[in-house]
Amino acid sequence: MYSREIEALLQKKGIVPGDTVRVVSNRKSFEGVLLPRPEFGDQDALVIKLKNGYNIGLELKRGSKIERLQREKESFAFPRVKLEKKEGLPDVAIVSTGGTIESKVDYVTGAVHMLVEPEEMLAQVPEILDVANFKVVSPMRIASEDMTYKNWQEIARAVAKALSDSHGVMVTHGTDTMHYTAAALSFMLEGVNGPVVLTGAQRSVDRGSSDAFMNLLCSAHMAAKGNVAEVGICMHANASDSYCNFMRGTKVRKLHTTRRDAFRSVNGRPIARVDTHGNIEYMDESRKRRSEGGRMRVVPGYEPRVALLKFYPNSDPEIIDFYIDRGYKGIIIEGTGMGHVAVAPTDGKLSWLGHIKRAVESGMVVGMTSQCLNGRVNANVYRNLRLISGTGAVYCEDMLPEVALVKLGWLLGNHKRTEAANLLAKNIAGEITERTEIDWD
Amino acid sequence: MYSREIEALLQKKGIVPGDTVRVVSNRKSFEGVLLPRPEFGDQDALVIKLKNGYNIGLELKRGSKIERLQREKESFAFPRVKLEKKEGLPDVAIVSTGGTIESKVDYVTGAVHMLVEPEEMLAQVPEILDVANFKVVSPMRIASEDMTYKNWQEIARAVAKALSDSHGVMVTHGTDTMHYTAAALSFMLEGVNGPVVLTGAQRSVDRGSSDAFMNLLCSAHMAAKGNVAEVGICMHANASDSYCNFMRGTKVRKLHTTRRDAFRSVNGRPIARVDTHGNIEYMDESRKRRSEGGRMRVVPGYEPRVALLKFYPNSDPEIIDFYIDRGYKGIIIEGTGMGHVAVAPTDGKLSWLGHIKRAVESGMVVGMTSQCLNGRVNANVYRNLRLISGTGAVYCEDMLPEVALVKLGWLLGNHKRTEAANLLAKNIAGEITERTEIDWD
Repeated sequence: MYSREIEALLQKKGIVPGDTVRVVSNRKSFEGVLLPRPEFGDQDALVIKLKNGYNIGLELKRGSKIERLQREKESFAFPRVKLEKKEGLPDVAIVSTGGTIESKVDYVTGAVHMLVEPEEMLAQVPEILDVANFKVVSPMRIASEDMTYKNWQEIARAVAKALSDSHGVMVTHGTDTMHYTAAALSFMLEGVNGPVVLTGAQRSVDRGSSDAFMNLLCSAHMAAKGNVAEVGICMHANASDSYCNFMRGTKVRKLHTTRRDAFRSVNGRPIARVDTHGNIEYMDESRKRRSEGGRMRVVPGYEPRVALLKFYPNSDPEIIDFYIDRGYKGIIIEGTGMGHVAVAPTDGKLSWLGHIKRAVESGMVVGMTSQCLNGRVNANVYRNLRLISGTGAVYCEDMLPEVALVKLGWLLGNHKRTEAANLLAKNIAGEITERTEIDWD
Repeated sequence: MYSREIEALLQKKGIVPGDTVRVVSNRKSFEGVLLPRPEFGDQDALVIKLKNGYNIGLELKRGSKIERLQREKESFAFPRVKLEKKEGLPDVAIVSTGGTIESKVDYVTGAVHMLVEPEEMLAQVPEILDVANFKVVSPMRIASEDMTYKNWQEIARAVAKALSDSHGVMVTHGTDTMHYTAAALSFMLEGVNGPVVLTGAQRSVDRGSSDAFMNLLCSAHMAAKGNVAEVGICMHANASDSYCNFMRGTKVRKLHTTRRDAFRSVNGRPIARVDTHGNIEYMDESRKRRSEGGRMRVVPGYEPRVALLKFYPNSDPEIIDFYIDRGYKGIIIEGTGMGHVAVAPTDGKLSWLGHIKRAVESGMVVGMTSQCLNGRVNANVYRNLRLISGTGAVYCEDMLPEVALVKLGWLLGNHKRTEAANLLAKNIAGEITERTEIDWD
């Protein structure tokens, strides 16, 4: 909110954020779009987005003036691009699913809404039209926190269809659960035979600092000519705008709430770095090349009755019973360290160890991962670990907890229980790295 | 396990891992302790720990010989130090609680057991006796995955008592839940007036690569002369043995399963770095100095009916009812991104949003954190976030989920519900950093 004085003035003039205005301050005149006051900043300064894209704060003093040039609706219709076929360019499909990258700020509430059509999104980065010929499909337009496995299945089908006549596919997606979707696609797209590039934005496209433009452009290059047959996430690699990383979909995690380089490879390195000019530097020689891509098949089965539980001091292991009672088929536990849970009974009650044993006996698949995120679980180092793995819990090597969850749901959706348990700790889509000496560094 | 041939030979000779042996291999003679075969390695090589500390693998071929020089028990009694008062040295108390730092490998099973007495532990780093005069108390000797809030309370009392006549206190502790205990002590030791230094080891003290020695020595220096009045964790700062970091107890997390530099400051920087020579470089000017320490008071109250839940795609929000039914007083949610959960109902059922609303209405305190770990939650950026915070859920700024859990249990153990909710997002022990521009980098 602006200060009471400014609010009163704006109200009197009928001006709302989003309107294009002319402000005279200190005898200088400025034209631009009135923004809502930034959350941290001077209450007494109007913030205007100038035509050149910069925001400026203007103090309203005696002698200052403000007038409206254009109403909000008119000023915020983004231009759209017309998708015309250009000769000699590779084909890239965009599977648009929603998220901040397809959003703009609602200048009345200051919150971000999902409003931008994919064609508007591309219009923000006109040079992208020289990278590839695009076609856009949009199976859904939702915030990524609302994604479910049904959306993953839809996206998998849309990607497979699109990939049949494109060099690569971009999937625009909200960042919050992008790594869950990336993991799901990694398993559901069996024998993927081209680059499947998920991308998004940490800041909406109408903000000067938006990462959308560069993420779109780098992802387009990766999809248009990347020599990979893998699912990955392509986002800012660092705080500057120097390049993006293309990170394996089963080895990546959102590790910051707001930074543009929030996505990081965990327990592995990025597959490639790619810049806005289309330079691609491959960093992982073990990557699957396009030529290795087989006949792609969508394997969409998914058992949603799988849970991800975190063990922590004083946590009640009877939570496991809650899931047994509901007919859950699998549980992934985020243990501490190398995969620990409490082994000693507390107040005469069964410990986590006892409840895990009961879950396995009831027919559940129980997988153990680490809340450390980095590194590998190991059932052999400590006595307590041996006790836990002795229950039949599967130690999931260096797999991320979220990836283990998605993998277990997918395994149980397509395989019998015993087979699913056997496959859980075996590498299928790059989610498990062979042991290396480096782990023990 | 060794190969069947070696096992047979050892059995015939009555030799077990842990025995001191002489092996003749390739006409050379080696003396040392027979180790169990390392998990990854040649089955046909005996592994001997030489007197100089190195391990060597020796192939047993025709002409090789092995004989026992000393039985296991005799060879593995560690020396103990005698704690004698030296003039002019500061007093440091060690509160020993268990963990790998107080453990050695069981050479029969190959697993790590808790066997080392604190005086044996110090004997591994004899130079530590020139740093301070030590006294040792040991309220418990347990693996840290078995710690509960009752242990936290005991440790808090032991630390407070010890600090009354020492410059500082070291707490030796298992690494798995060390950061949970560090958070608990940060809240329970109100007005802490000296350095409280938690330390541990990622490798047991009888391994050549153990980090115990350096961690003990650096922690002793920090406790003996650190000009801080804070609870922190002091562990290896990097993969080499150059120095340790002393990290604020409410801003630190175990972020690798096995690396010696597994503990990292999150959303803040270490308070100081300290080396084995006792050089201390302070890195955080905002730290509380010894002179600022007030009258210390133990505030041990803790409400254990608090839960930490992670939201993820397809997760069932009815888990919240499980905790309501059990009379829980508070829940910390690890949302995605800036603090999201699903807002859209799935299959006609109440969404996470609806269940959070119900929990708050039932009298629970609900706190929102981020599974990104790094960065800050923010209820104002997206429409869905506004809906969630509209339920009365408390957005916990840049507090780590585990710290928020411990803080909420502590608040509810010492305050009424409303006050606890009010204090949750206010800084008490360095767990919340004021907003900075850097967050938005």
